[in-house]
This record gives sequence, C-alpha cells and structure tokens, in this order.
Amino acid sequence: MHERSGSPAVVLLSGGLDSYTAAAIAQADGFALYALTVRYGQLHSCEIEASRRVARALRVVQHLELNVDLAAFGGSALTGDGLVEKNQQPDRGEIPATYVPARNTVLLSLALSWAEALAAYDIVIGVNALDYSGYPDCRQEYLNAFQRLADLGTRAGVEGGCFRLHAPLVRWTKAEIITRGQELGLDYGLTHSCYVPLPGGRACGRCDSCQLRARGFAQAGLVDPVMPSPGKS
Amino acid sequence: MHERSGSPAVVLLSGGLDSYTAAAIAQADGFALYALTVRYGQLHSCEIEASRRVARALRVVQHLELNVDLAAFGGSALTGDGLVEKNQQPDRGEIPATYVPARNTVLLSLALSWAEALAAYDIVIGVNALDYSGYPDCRQEYLNAFQRLADLGTRAGVEGGCFRLHAPLVRWTKAEIITRGQELGLDYGLTHSCYVPLPGGRACGRCDSCQLRARGFAQAGLVDPVMPSPGKS
Repeated sequence: MHERSGSPAVVLLSGGLDSYTAAAIAQADGFALYALTVRYGQLHSCEIEASRRVARALRVVQHLELNVDLAAFGGSALTGDGLVEKNQQPDRGEIPATYVPARNTVLLSLALSWAEALAAYDIVIGVNALDYSGYPDCRQEYLNAFQRLADLGTRAGVEGGCFRLHAPLVRWTKAEIITRGQELGLDYGLTHSCYVPLPGGRACGRCDSCQLRARGFAQAGLVDPVMPSPGKS
Repeated sequence: MHERSGSPAVVLLSGGLDSYTAAAIAQADGFALYALTVRYGQLHSCEIEASRRVARALRVVQHLELNVDLAAFGGSALTGDGLVEKNQQPDRGEIPATYVPARNTVLLSLALSWAEALAAYDIVIGVNALDYSGYPDCRQEYLNAFQRLADLGTRAGVEGGCFRLHAPLVRWTKAEIITRGQELGLDYGLTHSCYVPLPGGRACGRCDSCQLRARGFAQAGLVDPVMPSPGKS
C-alpha cells in the first residue's frame, strides 16, 4: 500500500465509500494516484471534506480540486433542483432525482484531460452498476464507449497510446466492495455518502445512499462507522 | 434570422469566427440557441469578450459562461504551459503546442449536461477538420464517438432520445466558412481568433490562427475587419 512510484493513474475521488475503495484497489495494483475531486455544485461541503481525508489517508501523489458549476445548468436534486426524498425505496430501476445530467461524462472528460497532461493512460472511477442501476452513466457499455472516445480524442491516443478506464467495482455488490475495503485496511469512517446530511455533516441514515450503505455493511457483517446508532435520527 | 422559438440547441461559443458561423447556421436552420462559453484557462480575456459580442449579435435565448480551470492540469501553450510560436507554419499535420488536452471532450460533455437539463437534443460545435488537421478531437470519427457516448450516458438517451451533434463546418475550408458567414450577414469584426494578441486585444497577424484566418479572407475575396493593415505589426 501507499505506493507512490508506480505508473500514474488519475482517480476520481468523491469522498464516498466507492471511490475510496476503487482508488485503494488501483494503489494495491501498483498505480501512483493522482486524485481529482470535482466540485460540481454539490449542496454539501461534507463530500469535499471527506475527499480530502481520503486523499490524505491514501497518501496520493497529488490531490486536485476543480470547480465546475453544473448547478448552473439545473436539472438535478443533487445540485439544488428539487428535493432529495427521504425514505424512498432504493434500487427501483428507474432514474432517480439525484441523477446529475451527464455527470460521469463531465467527470471522466476532466480526468482524461489531466491524464493526458500527466502522460498517464489510466483512469480510475468507482462507479457501480448494481447500486446505481438507474444511472445510465454507470453501465459497462457506457464505460467502453468512453474509453473508445478517449483514444480517438486525444493526442496520446492518436499517437498510439491506449487509455484504460478502470471501474473495479462495476459489478460488485456493496457488501463485496466493503469486504474488499476491509481487506485493504480502509477506514470508512473518513468517507461521506449521505445525500441529505444532518447539521454537522452526520449521515441521515434514511436517504437512498445511506440505505444502500447500511445494507452493504449489514450484509458484510460489519458496522458502519459513520452511521447513526438505531433510535437516533 | 434571430429565431428564438425553434427547438433548443446548445452551441459552444468561443468568440472565434468558426463557432459564430456554426451558431448562425444552426439558427438559420431554425434552432433556438443556448450559447455556452467555457473559460478553461485561456490566457487572454479577449476571447470571452468576443463571445459576449457574438452572443448579443445572435440574440441567443441564453448565454452561460462557465469556469473550468483546465490550466490547473497543465500541458498546453494555450493555457500557459510553453509559448505559442509566432510565424510557425500552419497546417503541418502534426499536433501543435496549442492543443489543450481533451479540450473538445470537456467542452462537449459540458454542452451535453446543459442540453440534457434543458431537454434539448441538439449540440452545435464549430470544429473544422481541415484547418485543425493536427487536433484529434476535431475529426468526424471522434464526433461520431461522442454522439454515441451521449446516447449511452444520459437519461434522455436511455429513454429513447437521440442526441445530434452538429458540426456544420467540419469539412469546409476557411474561405467556405467565411463566404457562408457573409451570406448570413455576420459581422466578423465582433470575433477574436488570435492566439497572441497585442496590447488592447488586437490580432497579431502572425500566429497560426491569424494566418489561417487571413488566408481564408483572401481566398474568399474579402477583407478581415479585425486584421492589422499591412505594414503595421
């Protein structure tokens, strides 16, 4: 772990559990991590703060925070348009209100720009097609299309390089992700996943994201260090 | 002209001659224009000011300026890494120092995000494969790959919509672009193309971009309103 001398890889780091685990897997595979956190208009600063804690814990080579105000476009509950519902049923197979238009395309294009400037060919993203079955930009077919675009649309690709888009979690359950993270010694107490945090940034325990996370920890037979104890809310 | 009631289209507007012409063609085709100008770390504010003049002249429905600091990644003379050479030979078929890593992928992903939020399916970009033969992200094959990605990676695409990426200038010579712009009554005095402007924002007349433009006007049998008179420099 804490490998800083391998091939460079740009990793999209959100401050959540998934991107932390994906980054740690890439690091265990020998990549030197360049972490990119995009402030795209998230309503809560807890995510950004969590990304800093995670980047420090991973001892990444460099952590860049980039502002891109997708909230200016509107169209998502996550950036201020409409409400994130509490207690809604997750995993319904439809696209949730928290979908941000073309978010992963924006995030991956920024990661690609940095990768090319760094002469890196590896990009790591913690997307997961099971938990986010309603998000079109979390599917393997989409990721394949982006990888093809990366080779066509860059100097590095035209000159014979070949970008590799790593999405190690894409087919894993949340419990499998958490189990792998435990094996890698990750501290999930550093992360933030809640869509509608309580004052002080504590997880609400009720939103889609909290429920998915709670079920994952339960199925992995573990306790989530950031979840409120039963009875509190 | 000045049609504001057609189908919405997001147009990437740089303040240069090409994007102005592409936008005007889309408008003549009946689209209501939503213009997006991205400040990605260009060294000169003249481009942004030109985009405002052009947006006003086109009477677009909305003009958004978005900051995305690609200069933080490094890797291009256009955003401050290295020098833009004067008097270099344009059209050499190699990738110039002014190439910005993955720029069009970033710009198109932002246009896609806005388009989806607007429920628009049309995106207009003024890329040209002849003048910028060295830029991988100006080729038709690249544009086709992006259009495919847009359908795969958005709610709108998954729900059966079909994005259309319009690049009306992609196979035109600069003279053909300028001739079409004249027919549409465009005022190219509003635009800015120079990579290394003189104090006050005047075109240098020598850089790649100025030379391409000068040849285009000459071949079209027209005078470029922004070019310095011969003898001055």
